[in-house]
Amino acid sequence: MIQTNLHASRPISFKQVKIEDDYWSVYTRLVRDTVIPYQWEALNDRVSDAEPSYAIRNFRIAAGHEEGEFGGFVFQDSDLAKWLEAVGYSLSVQPDPELEAIADGAIDLIADAQRPDGYLNTYFTIKAPEQRWTNLFDCHELYCAGHMIEAAVAYYEATGKRKLLDAMCRFADYIDTVFGPEPGKLRGYDGHQEIELALVKLYKTTGEEKYAKLAAFFINERGQEPNFLLAEWEKRGRTSHWQAGVTRKPDPAYNQAHKPVREQDVAVGHSVRAVYMYTAMADLAALTGDESLLEACRKLWRNMVDKQMYITGGIGSTHHGEAFSFDYDLPNDTVYAETCASIGLIFFAHRMLQIEADAAYADVLERALYNNVAGSMQRDGKHFFYVNPLEVWPEASEKNPGRHHVKPVRQKWFGCACCPPNVSRLLSSLGEYIYTTDDQTIYTHLYIGSEAEAALPGEAKVKLKQETDYPWNGAVRLTVALGEPRTFAIALRIPSWADGFEVKVNGQTLQPSDDDVRKGYLYVSRTWGDGDAIELALPMEARMVEANPSVRANAGKAAMTRGPLVYCLEETDNGSHLSAIAVKPDAKLEAVLEPDVLGGTVVLKGEGFRDDQADWSGELYRPFSRKAEPVALQWVPYSAWGNRGAGEMSVWFRMKE
Amino acid sequence: MIQTNLHASRPISFKQVKIEDDYWSVYTRLVRDTVIPYQWEALNDRVSDAEPSYAIRNFRIAAGHEEGEFGGFVFQDSDLAKWLEAVGYSLSVQPDPELEAIADGAIDLIADAQRPDGYLNTYFTIKAPEQRWTNLFDCHELYCAGHMIEAAVAYYEATGKRKLLDAMCRFADYIDTVFGPEPGKLRGYDGHQEIELALVKLYKTTGEEKYAKLAAFFINERGQEPNFLLAEWEKRGRTSHWQAGVTRKPDPAYNQAHKPVREQDVAVGHSVRAVYMYTAMADLAALTGDESLLEACRKLWRNMVDKQMYITGGIGSTHHGEAFSFDYDLPNDTVYAETCASIGLIFFAHRMLQIEADAAYADVLERALYNNVAGSMQRDGKHFFYVNPLEVWPEASEKNPGRHHVKPVRQKWFGCACCPPNVSRLLSSLGEYIYTTDDQTIYTHLYIGSEAEAALPGEAKVKLKQETDYPWNGAVRLTVALGEPRTFAIALRIPSWADGFEVKVNGQTLQPSDDDVRKGYLYVSRTWGDGDAIELALPMEARMVEANPSVRANAGKAAMTRGPLVYCLEETDNGSHLSAIAVKPDAKLEAVLEPDVLGGTVVLKGEGFRDDQADWSGELYRPFSRKAEPVALQWVPYSAWGNRGAGEMSVWFRMKE
Repeated sequence: MIQTNLHASRPISFKQVKIEDDYWSVYTRLVRDTVIPYQWEALNDRVSDAEPSYAIRNFRIAAGHEEGEFGGFVFQDSDLAKWLEAVGYSLSVQPDPELEAIADGAIDLIADAQRPDGYLNTYFTIKAPEQRWTNLFDCHELYCAGHMIEAAVAYYEATGKRKLLDAMCRFADYIDTVFGPEPGKLRGYDGHQEIELALVKLYKTTGEEKYAKLAAFFINERGQEPNFLLAEWEKRGRTSHWQAGVTRKPDPAYNQAHKPVREQDVAVGHSVRAVYMYTAMADLAALTGDESLLEACRKLWRNMVDKQMYITGGIGSTHHGEAFSFDYDLPNDTVYAETCASIGLIFFAHRMLQIEADAAYADVLERALYNNVAGSMQRDGKHFFYVNPLEVWPEASEKNPGRHHVKPVRQKWFGCACCPPNVSRLLSSLGEYIYTTDDQTIYTHLYIGSEAEAALPGEAKVKLKQETDYPWNGAVRLTVALGEPRTFAIALRIPSWADGFEVKVNGQTLQPSDDDVRKGYLYVSRTWGDGDAIELALPMEARMVEANPSVRANAGKAAMTRGPLVYCLEETDNGSHLSAIAVKPDAKLEAVLEPDVLGGTVVLKGEGFRDDQADWSGELYRPFSRKAEPVALQWVPYSAWGNRGAGEMSVWFRMKE
Repeated sequence: MIQTNLHASRPISFKQVKIEDDYWSVYTRLVRDTVIPYQWEALNDRVSDAEPSYAIRNFRIAAGHEEGEFGGFVFQDSDLAKWLEAVGYSLSVQPDPELEAIADGAIDLIADAQRPDGYLNTYFTIKAPEQRWTNLFDCHELYCAGHMIEAAVAYYEATGKRKLLDAMCRFADYIDTVFGPEPGKLRGYDGHQEIELALVKLYKTTGEEKYAKLAAFFINERGQEPNFLLAEWEKRGRTSHWQAGVTRKPDPAYNQAHKPVREQDVAVGHSVRAVYMYTAMADLAALTGDESLLEACRKLWRNMVDKQMYITGGIGSTHHGEAFSFDYDLPNDTVYAETCASIGLIFFAHRMLQIEADAAYADVLERALYNNVAGSMQRDGKHFFYVNPLEVWPEASEKNPGRHHVKPVRQKWFGCACCPPNVSRLLSSLGEYIYTTDDQTIYTHLYIGSEAEAALPGEAKVKLKQETDYPWNGAVRLTVALGEPRTFAIALRIPSWADGFEVKVNGQTLQPSDDDVRKGYLYVSRTWGDGDAIELALPMEARMVEANPSVRANAGKAAMTRGPLVYCLEETDNGSHLSAIAVKPDAKLEAVLEPDVLGGTVVLKGEGFRDDQADWSGELYRPFSRKAEPVALQWVPYSAWGNRGAGEMSVWFRMKE
């Protein structure tokens, strides 16, 4: 099936990239030093005041090390898998024998819990062994398998240890005997996509083509008639794992199984399921050269990004089903914008970027990473947002049930804890998102201080050192280290938010032609010698952004941004009743590095108006006479909100001349 | 217990007021000629394409006239009761032997369904006779009793026929043996308040003090410790009528039973339950002179009206539990503002107005009547809103589950059909809301063309003829007809929206002193002779209203009003994307009678801005450059919206200089 290869470029692996960056090192150190240890405690139910995970305990029971009942959600195994995946990335960046020993112990436990036929799932093993593969719709069996496969690949890549990889190959081999087009096999797929992209990774690591074929089977089968998920529901007696009794007919659009994937052009249903699927579709399109699959990816991408994405890179605007609602429906207050969905969007963007070196993908990747995802984690590494709102009124979150899902403060480990370990695995593999390479070009997608080693054709290596204060400052210095001079291009992403740029090579300003900038990348092509340096200067001005008028929620409003960062106002800086604040369209916004705000943050300062509240005497309505006073405002990056106590927060503000 | 009488005035009964009014006769005729007959069809399950009611069928089964299972909700009986109540009012205004025969037949059926001990409830009679009074929390037993008592009183007052009244006295007598402070009786109350106000009516009609005492028992017992509703839930095994299995501990605040009623000062919980209770509290305060009860009424009134009421007179801002959320939380898009809640608010206002002749109560009564309630009924009399939104985006109502409850078009009869028959009984008794009288004064609360007969001290009668084009025009002419000249005051309400007024008596302009206007009423005190006439001119200018800055949803926005009417923009007049429209703070708004709009409607015309959508090329975000073009706008009364096809609608608009 692997007929051709659409890859324009391939990532430089996280193993070859060492992040040394004032901005991101805070996060990556936090993940390594706090999040990963904390999550291990959580997986072991040792975090007081947080909902228990039961994850390790389930594995102990399934392995026969302990007696007891299954605890937590049916997909609880995936939390341990995502933790192990993060550990793998982390170990490759920073060896830690103690952590590795813990991980090896967890892997031993997983292997003990695996059934002789290769099957692994603590829920079904403990609770319903006879019900394997009878409720793909609800029960996440293949989803959990996918996460464990991803963990196995990451851990093997990082440590060279094969135990989990071999176990997961056995599991995948077994799955391959259960699912497929052949008579006697299930022509089905999981209710929650994930295994598809995992199997592609397993293929890439092992070279076993059958894993890629199985991934393609799942993708191609999805949404075909007769609908597998509905037939399975009928066969089960119309029951659900989640509800007692006979249930109403489910809507396969929730699982993106309402039509064949190549016919889908609007992002619908559960947003995490959607982007995990699109990621696998892009993977398979790249592997097989399937243009129809790639075209579906492009359409789905455009729909999400042009019509269903918050300015923070959040997707999925309703908490009902954690789902997309419809084009231009982006309410700021009843928002969902789940952390995991933005992580999946980053995965999808990363895959598309490898097929087409188009900065449009990297712009979205950067937007989701620097805003929605970075903002989901507290600066203590122990509290997380699941829902990432663009407007918070804490009293409404508490007292209006339609906004209960919007938390004004980050929560400890969740019972359904998909997000924290997902953040952890993304941030610990962040190095992999900076560069891709092909035979002639090294693409720089993200500006993150780091040292990377890229392979050039003919076994040559080139080292790239990136130095920058990004996102506080748009100056980036890239230094090349290599043995012999070599001719190749370094392509620098010019973000769509940058109003121009300046670039120097070895101190000499370049005057790039229009041809040198293609799809958002400046190609600097020359014979590079050891010590050559590029200096890129991206103008980083605060700017006001407006939304398409079809986005009703943002009509007449603007959001402040600077570089990749979206900014917000918080009550702690600007008082309560943020809705009373309006911004002048021509307001001068000054970017100021405040060393005392969150350990050094560039804030925006400017003047606006605040509606007068003092002259109201308790009435609810009165003749219009809105009086507003000038007021000094201070914005902080959205990613930093909620780190200084609970309070109101808002991204979009109305404009007032 | 009836120690004193706080009544400042008493209503002139609907029997003594005949409405002849261009504006309201449309509605009252609609109720008489269309709604009442249509609802009878609905109660008999003869409306195609509408959810069946089962109401009559349940009574036939309970009466033994038919075999079958109970259908519909546990409170289905109340639909028939509210219909009968409306029929009573309607017959007193316009005799209709055919309708009266139908109603008599229904009453015969009700009497047949009554148990020998006086008990009446088709759900428990058919389905669970042994479970009487075991789930007051969920099952509306006393609520249904209350509605049937109200029906009995109305039907007796209108026709003089005692059959239903006697039956309901037997029922109330039986209830009095079940509930009370005495040992062996249940110290309880209904989960849904209603019987309390009904028992006060029954007392007033029959003179039987025990009914008022029973009402007072229910009110006084509510919220006392130990909590009856919680104890009952425990006793039942923590089950619920609405959910299978053992349920979570319910919150008695939903039923306003979280604390004794005299300690309540914030409107909480299910909004209809709340206002029905407040109405009974005001009734009892007036009867007994209980100042602590009256003070609680005043506080609850102020909280609702000053902090939790939409400009349309809607209350209850969340569909979760059809409930109040919290102070200043008045979202326009996810709103609830149930029709029945505004009707209950009108009841409460009407009672308070009788205790204190303060136009603040009548202003709210008028606001709720002319906007939320009038707007709930389609001009065909066959479609109704349950939820009365202030902002509608039809696609969001369809595709965002958090807004499914907001319907862009009125629905036929509902399965849970509380609202349509409630509108019907209110509008058919509208005459009762126009005047109240005491020994010296006739208060005019509403300006509705009508002929009324008031009793003066000493058995004298005075006739009042009111002529007006209100609400299109603020000119009102009141002509007095009486035998002998008499000295008394006519108090004219000066609405809070009126910026001044002019008044003439027999063509002579009065120059009222400050003392003549007290709490919003102009007292014209003189010796009135036959044919004397007052002409009141209220300036009816279009005006822009702003909301308290604590109402986040309306920040920076204004709503257009004229007289008692709130106006809105509809897509049919102004195109889609109403959110793209802004209004000039100094815009001239012209009031124009458009004969072709909904059979003659005063619309408002003015200039605003519309954000340019043409220069957007598909992107979702871009640097702020909001361009807006001047645009001509046309507002229609909120009460008229949704009568010309489905489309966007909005009440509040942002302002732009």
